[in-house]
Amino acid sequence: MIPTPYLLFLGDAPDPLAAKVAQGIRDWSPDVAVGQLRLPGCQADMGLPDMSLEEGLAAGAKTLVVGVANRGGVISDLWLDVLADALEQGYNLASGLHTLLRDQPLLANTAARTGRQLYDVRIPSTAFPIADGRKRTGKRCLAVGTDCSIGKMYTAMAMDREMQSRGLKSTMRATGQTGILVTGAGIPLDAVIADFMAGAVEWLTPDNDPDHWDHIEGQGSLFHISYSGVTMALIHGGQPDALILCHEPTRTHMRGLPDYGLPSLETLRDTALPLARVANPDCQVAGISVNTRALTPEAAQTCVEEIEARMGLPTADPVRHGAGRLVDALLSL
Amino acid sequence: MIPTPYLLFLGDAPDPLAAKVAQGIRDWSPDVAVGQLRLPGCQADMGLPDMSLEEGLAAGAKTLVVGVANRGGVISDLWLDVLADALEQGYNLASGLHTLLRDQPLLANTAARTGRQLYDVRIPSTAFPIADGRKRTGKRCLAVGTDCSIGKMYTAMAMDREMQSRGLKSTMRATGQTGILVTGAGIPLDAVIADFMAGAVEWLTPDNDPDHWDHIEGQGSLFHISYSGVTMALIHGGQPDALILCHEPTRTHMRGLPDYGLPSLETLRDTALPLARVANPDCQVAGISVNTRALTPEAAQTCVEEIEARMGLPTADPVRHGAGRLVDALLSL
Repeated sequence: MIPTPYLLFLGDAPDPLAAKVAQGIRDWSPDVAVGQLRLPGCQADMGLPDMSLEEGLAAGAKTLVVGVANRGGVISDLWLDVLADALEQGYNLASGLHTLLRDQPLLANTAARTGRQLYDVRIPSTAFPIADGRKRTGKRCLAVGTDCSIGKMYTAMAMDREMQSRGLKSTMRATGQTGILVTGAGIPLDAVIADFMAGAVEWLTPDNDPDHWDHIEGQGSLFHISYSGVTMALIHGGQPDALILCHEPTRTHMRGLPDYGLPSLETLRDTALPLARVANPDCQVAGISVNTRALTPEAAQTCVEEIEARMGLPTADPVRHGAGRLVDALLSL
Repeated sequence: MIPTPYLLFLGDAPDPLAAKVAQGIRDWSPDVAVGQLRLPGCQADMGLPDMSLEEGLAAGAKTLVVGVANRGGVISDLWLDVLADALEQGYNLASGLHTLLRDQPLLANTAARTGRQLYDVRIPSTAFPIADGRKRTGKRCLAVGTDCSIGKMYTAMAMDREMQSRGLKSTMRATGQTGILVTGAGIPLDAVIADFMAGAVEWLTPDNDPDHWDHIEGQGSLFHISYSGVTMALIHGGQPDALILCHEPTRTHMRGLPDYGLPSLETLRDTALPLARVANPDCQVAGISVNTRALTPEAAQTCVEEIEARMGLPTADPVRHGAGRLVDALLSL
């Protein structure tokens, strides 16, 4: 677990897009961040209080999170000075950068001397076992999509939040960099060695109370040829009790693959469910999450109703409509 | 490519099983090995001429292959002396051991000084791209199984050999340690980082002549929850034109998973073929390979005939009956 709360380091972000990780934390866990630290020239703003390192500490921050991408893969001297100073003052550091904190001698040495931790969430920090397929206690829900980047993490986060707000037992299980920084824990599954993928997912979603739900962040798609192996490992390692089908109705081809069309929701259901039942014969499709961001409110409503009528499953856009309907569906299984 | 021919190092193998890799090379590529080097006390024998390092060199050997497992994960001083001496005399070294040759300072230093190569085939030697799904020229055949360790490599090897013997264009594409040492090339797919699995398979099976067949060594099974992600990446990265279904009729549960039963051949077909058609809409199931090692000749014959009648697909045990029937089936697609 990455110690919270965070101070978000936005550096000298040239534009808001460069601070995408900070934006994810801001969208999903504003309470986890006490403020933002911006260097001169920074063009991103999370709307959080601007703080110095000292002010962040005074506000209780335990970890300085690099919430901005570094230009050209190089951590500049300007950044290094701030990050090293943070370690000296008592912060831990966390980052999803390709360039690892631990590979910067100044940071590695300072962390070793001060006893602070460096969290490079882009690479796994644990040696995982081979999956053993043992039936685990507790319940698990996995979002699977007709494509990548279609709203699977958003769906899981929204359902977890909805259950938490009802006082139900629920945990978000992050499997990607942003999810890990948002929740403070998880596994960057796309960086795990092939043989250990399913075992990593088992490790991430251990035995739990019978009425506890893990919401496992999905990755890739069974129909996205670049990443389908990672999706498969989630379906078998996660041994889900419930699947949520995720779809974006305006997408015309698989992300990054112009020659590949999207499968229908029926095809996704008929492919994913039998595979999930290999690991958990009781698995069911609980509902459908539609990402209607590109539609007008009227078109979104029509789209959701059409899909619900066609598929015979509770359907909602958890952003537009909230996750209540999907959580109700889960609990009624 | 690992330079051939090989001298097989059997060390002080305590029993024949310890020399399983050497046995695989002996079974599949006896011509690639000029002889065997055994230390005092060695209890394994490949039936090859016993040679010293000097005699191996005189017989043309280019690489000393560690064909034996090391006890307790430690490369003994006894072995190190022989391996370093081999480098001094002009050999390259190849090994599928978990303990890497490159992590032995004596071997790393000696190889650097002498300009010889260390081939640790258990880990990938290349940075692979993300799969792009581009349609490649040439033909590809992938063996998929109802379980792991069911004869997929054997089937691919036998079909490649059969095509070669007919003067047809054919290449075996190894994806595991033994296959790599047998063929001298390939990718240890189970050791590749998750995001790059399918891209590694694309890299391994590039554009080729329209009448050339790649025989891709399968791994795992879509129904083996520990390794199904690796299988999925082979199906999508390989974009096979043909699948061969592999089965072992006496197995009572999935290998290493006592609580998991095997799927039927029908279920394997109906699961693997639609997934393969995501990457290659023209993919077909060409035939069925049955591993009848555990059966009497009569029972094997009955078993193969029963499966062929039931499934309506050419069926054979390529060990017992040769791979001719399966190659005929491939060519008639």
